[in-house]
Amino acid sequence: MSRDLRFLILADGLFGPETSKTANACIRYTPERVVGIIDATRAGRRAEDVIGFGGDIPVVATLDEGLSLKPNALLVGIAPAGGKLPAEWILLLARAIEHGLAIWNGLHTFVADVPELAALAAKHRVAIHDLRRPPARLDVARGRVRNIDATVVLTVGTDCNIGKMTTQLQILDALREKGIRTSFAATGQTGILIEGRGIAVDAVVADFIAGAAESLVLESAKDSDLVLVEGQGSIIHPSYSGVTYGLMHGSLPHAQVMCAQPSRRAINNCEWVKIPPLPDFIRLSEAALAPLRPAPVIAVALNTFDLDDDAARRAIETTERDTGLPTTDPVRFDPAPIVDAIAVFHEARKAPVSA
Amino acid sequence: MSRDLRFLILADGLFGPETSKTANACIRYTPERVVGIIDATRAGRRAEDVIGFGGDIPVVATLDEGLSLKPNALLVGIAPAGGKLPAEWILLLARAIEHGLAIWNGLHTFVADVPELAALAAKHRVAIHDLRRPPARLDVARGRVRNIDATVVLTVGTDCNIGKMTTQLQILDALREKGIRTSFAATGQTGILIEGRGIAVDAVVADFIAGAAESLVLESAKDSDLVLVEGQGSIIHPSYSGVTYGLMHGSLPHAQVMCAQPSRRAINNCEWVKIPPLPDFIRLSEAALAPLRPAPVIAVALNTFDLDDDAARRAIETTERDTGLPTTDPVRFDPAPIVDAIAVFHEARKAPVSA
Repeated sequence: MSRDLRFLILADGLFGPETSKTANACIRYTPERVVGIIDATRAGRRAEDVIGFGGDIPVVATLDEGLSLKPNALLVGIAPAGGKLPAEWILLLARAIEHGLAIWNGLHTFVADVPELAALAAKHRVAIHDLRRPPARLDVARGRVRNIDATVVLTVGTDCNIGKMTTQLQILDALREKGIRTSFAATGQTGILIEGRGIAVDAVVADFIAGAAESLVLESAKDSDLVLVEGQGSIIHPSYSGVTYGLMHGSLPHAQVMCAQPSRRAINNCEWVKIPPLPDFIRLSEAALAPLRPAPVIAVALNTFDLDDDAARRAIETTERDTGLPTTDPVRFDPAPIVDAIAVFHEARKAPVSA
Repeated sequence: MSRDLRFLILADGLFGPETSKTANACIRYTPERVVGIIDATRAGRRAEDVIGFGGDIPVVATLDEGLSLKPNALLVGIAPAGGKLPAEWILLLARAIEHGLAIWNGLHTFVADVPELAALAAKHRVAIHDLRRPPARLDVARGRVRNIDATVVLTVGTDCNIGKMTTQLQILDALREKGIRTSFAATGQTGILIEGRGIAVDAVVADFIAGAAESLVLESAKDSDLVLVEGQGSIIHPSYSGVTYGLMHGSLPHAQVMCAQPSRRAINNCEWVKIPPLPDFIRLSEAALAPLRPAPVIAVALNTFDLDDDAARRAIETTERDTGLPTTDPVRFDPAPIVDAIAVFHEARKAPVSA
């Protein structure tokens, strides 16, 4: 993936701490690639003012304003439920292409499959990157992950948009600094954008979810001893649980890291599904994997962005007591408790069994 | 779906009790539509000799022999893992099209997407029916099934190819005879072939599995008070569990019927996954649905095709004792125990709560 990307991010009407997941992750992990964000409802403010990080990156009202920031690519930075490309954006994308901007898109609707946009992109010689486009050939899962030596750690969570990708990205460098060859296996459009490779497991044909996860872990294990797999959804999510289970049973982790938000009592946008108490949820998650490969939950990552510092610390202490597991908010505080739990687990797996 | 179908079924090398699922179900439930089966390795025998039912329907060695039986359609009757269209069949399909046969195909690879075959079909004015082709528009699941009055009953199973569709088809008529307006919601290529409508949930984009199940149940409930949903896969299947869970969480059944095979100790083709004892497996299946909608397992359907009569009866007795649930083999014996369990459950749901 090119290092000289200069993204203008489309997040119109939805740029915010909880509503523009792809935009926010791009700003958090690759701010050097972002020249501005389009959101007419927040124009004139800075990224930092709106989402709490991103410094002076400006929010602008229109594509025309954004063009003055000299972008070379337009990133569709929000992911509405169902991932469809809103009709009103097609015109905007067309104008971006006419101005020579490459298109980066994480929606289920592929920009390259919109004939007018594909033709326009060809004419103006700009590239269209549909991040969720599945590989041309996928196979069903066959448990081949069991043959690799690498330790596989999957983040799981009580809900969507709760920190499964962010947790892995926050601990990646620290694990590498410990001398463990660690890779990040991206399973969603945002992770792929940041990592430069991966498979969006929610976009493959349903029978191949686990197969996609399997091939991704096999590939990631080629150059690493520890594979951090980006989790998806939740085992109790009424819309997306199929993706969650397929990813769990295809990646066959040795251990899980549980992601939760103390203030969240029910599934977002599906309030009728209550989130069980965390110790119960952890048992459910372990039970779901046990028939295939026992994978204990070894640490908890809390998302405390909506709490003040004191409340966040109290939530972490309470969770540690209730679950008996190392707990932290890896964004707000030191991710070391999770890093150390994984490192200890990995070393124990590698240690020769004593005679 | 046309009633004057005359299928020649392609099952080359794989026609047998366990290896030609689509062919067998078509022969069991719509024998009047089947003129012959192509399988060079079993040519000269009758269907009944090979799979135990189907009477005198002949097995032939080649397409040319089959054409003498005056078919008007070719059905791809086997579903290899991954559902790919073997290259050697493309030539055979081309010749069938040239002879005016419509094509019915349940594989993941769509015949209409093979340019040569699509062109040939257009030229010869024959139709191509790709049974797994998803609807053009799907939405993510939103729990809308909770708003319907109909009772929803899902078959679940310890493994693939164990009787989840067959159980529903065996009990459908008896439930209707009890005066309950009952529909069958087909979720796989074979069920769709038999029922004439449905959605192959394993062929939709992964994020839409539950959404497809939801829309199917909503549609089926329009003209019925009881919806029998065809289950898929298994919650412990390493290749297909994502489809299973998505279907469970999208269809939101009120009750489950558990399908198992007494002689099967591990997942077919994935022998490293052992099937837990049935009472444990039932608890796992109930736990998987409980956070969304508690759905008890209310009956057990055993597949005893590989046991003699005595052993089959003993297996049923043992299962009844171990699980405390009404149990039968609904193909071999009277399906009444399952029918009655569902009817009682349905009536209890409908009964006004006493003051």
